Amino acid sequence: MADGHPGSESSPRSALRREIGEQPEVVARLLDRERAHVASLVTRWRRQNLHYLTIVARGSSDNAATYGKYLFGVLNNITVALAAPSIYTLYGARPNVRQSLVVAISQEGDDADILAVVEEAKKQSAPVLAITNAPKSRLASLADEMVELHAGEETGIVASKTFTASIGALALIGAAWAGSDSPSHLDELMSVPEKMAQALEIESQIRTAARMFVGIDRALVIGRGFNYCTALEIALKLKELTFLAAEPYSSADFLHGPIAMVNENLHALVVAPSGQAHADAVEFTQMLKREGARIIGVSDEADFLALADVGWKIPSTSEWLSPLVAAVPGQLLALHVAQAKGHDVDRPRREPKAPDPT
Amino acid sequence: MADGHPGSESSPRSALRREIGEQPEVVARLLDRERAHVASLVTRWRRQNLHYLTIVARGSSDNAATYGKYLFGVLNNITVALAAPSIYTLYGARPNVRQSLVVAISQEGDDADILAVVEEAKKQSAPVLAITNAPKSRLASLADEMVELHAGEETGIVASKTFTASIGALALIGAAWAGSDSPSHLDELMSVPEKMAQALEIESQIRTAARMFVGIDRALVIGRGFNYCTALEIALKLKELTFLAAEPYSSADFLHGPIAMVNENLHALVVAPSGQAHADAVEFTQMLKREGARIIGVSDEADFLALADVGWKIPSTSEWLSPLVAAVPGQLLALHVAQAKGHDVDRPRREPKAPDPT
Repeated sequence: MADGHPGSESSPRSALRREIGEQPEVVARLLDRERAHVASLVTRWRRQNLHYLTIVARGSSDNAATYGKYLFGVLNNITVALAAPSIYTLYGARPNVRQSLVVAISQEGDDADILAVVEEAKKQSAPVLAITNAPKSRLASLADEMVELHAGEETGIVASKTFTASIGALALIGAAWAGSDSPSHLDELMSVPEKMAQALEIESQIRTAARMFVGIDRALVIGRGFNYCTALEIALKLKELTFLAAEPYSSADFLHGPIAMVNENLHALVVAPSGQAHADAVEFTQMLKREGARIIGVSDEADFLALADVGWKIPSTSEWLSPLVAAVPGQLLALHVAQAKGHDVDRPRREPKAPDPT
Repeated sequence: MADGHPGSESSPRSALRREIGEQPEVVARLLDRERAHVASLVTRWRRQNLHYLTIVARGSSDNAATYGKYLFGVLNNITVALAAPSIYTLYGARPNVRQSLVVAISQEGDDADILAVVEEAKKQSAPVLAITNAPKSRLASLADEMVELHAGEETGIVASKTFTASIGALALIGAAWAGSDSPSHLDELMSVPEKMAQALEIESQIRTAARMFVGIDRALVIGRGFNYCTALEIALKLKELTFLAAEPYSSADFLHGPIAMVNENLHALVVAPSGQAHADAVEFTQMLKREGARIIGVSDEADFLALADVGWKIPSTSEWLSPLVAAVPGQLLALHVAQAKGHDVDRPRREPKAPDPT
């Protein structure tokens, strides 16, 4: 069966599939090359009078920023503000970020929106860190410090390896900041690339299940806490590549309203690895099932996978690192649904003329 | 024609319709009763060494919090962090909010998630403001200060008047904080209830257009800058009441990805009042039209309404106040689509057993 040979089906391997496959080595390289550098940066930041973090990003990088909000909150007890660039660009305002470390995440480092926030932070003499895949970019030159993603060129039209590399860079910073409080954090992080590689091995199951998504036009993608970012990113991939109305939710927010829309036609991808958010996810999923929804579960927990109509087992990690592993099946799902629909994942369906960002 | 008599069609007036209609008087009462109180609070906060704001909320109140992020950023140059309650409740972390004013928005003031964040802020001796409709609630008793919404009991199953009242309370705080820099802000705010009343008068047009939404299962709701919150709230109402897959977007974020999903079957409600975000909205809407989408426009600008397939004219306000007016047609749309589908808007389709918040 072709299913036994992931990626070897009819269509030649796409740039996107290649980049999804590169993720374990990209994250491993990032950790190897940036670990000592990040340790020295964090030593300096710890001495400064920083009261909170401000993160600025767009698109997939903004989903990584959402990871940062949970990461720095949980591991480091640091409050994170996600900057809205239009406050700076559309309205010309200059929010005070003086007591903040400003972190800009941008793979190409040339987004006018992001640069506007960074320029204002520099005027205010706030320290600025760039997390970017483009060390010669305008962003890198403006920032005080840079953590480079080392992801290699991303030729796919949607972000994959730069997303997980950005998560990896943030995790590295959070682990270093936790420092001697949690010496095991860095060790745990170092073991993640191997687990990402294992997550790639379930591709044949995902390709099979992808057919189920071809005839539908709507799906929920659920994740909570650390994996809220995973839900956001998987939903974005599904929308970008398959044009499905994929709606991301934290289960907590979902209960505050749109629960009324659940019915027997609804497919829900629930990202629920073990950890503090798991029990809640199980209960939430049971409720979705009672309402008739079809559940696609992503987890390392057998109890949860048994509950799902389709379950994808991923390797176990500490919860704070699970998005790096749990994102992989979601990326593969978006890829295979798109291919099952006959889309070329490396070519946009068309190139709409987008307004210039202002 | 029944259309000439808004609200007088076949079905008796619902609690929700009554509460949508009460909004001008609710906001007027709030401004009247809280104006002097807010001025004195702001005088005190200005003297404290506050570096940023932290806002905590869920559901519709969280959409109001998003308004606060733009409001305080643009009017007051204050950075706003939106707290993720699960950082506190699921993970037991205690992010540092010492240099922050913590603002909790909750109509009933009894949400365990919100209370957990407030309790931690109190432990850290951070000043806490409650914005609530429940002056005897646990939240009100925990907080150092309260701005009461004075909205009266909200019996509808979805928030309407407490949403706009929360926006009004935030606007009052922002205007007072801008203070002598912008003495006209308070005057502009005082004129808003009358404009909200005018926005209610286009109900017959909305009822007619609502039929167009009965046969569809997906729609975009677009707003940018100050009106990103408006898009979030209208999409939530559509989901809660009509079970439509209503996807809210900032036009800026939309261009970073899901644009590929636009096609001729897509309906897009675009909230684009005059102001700094307007030109961008016009250009974005032209692009959606080229892709074949059907546009329902909400604006005070004739050029934009001419561009839309269906245009709803709202009274002009300053952009920072426009969400109070622009939300009204969206609420009415959700109500009338639900009624056109035969739903009882005052009764949930069912009461799913929700997991307890943890």
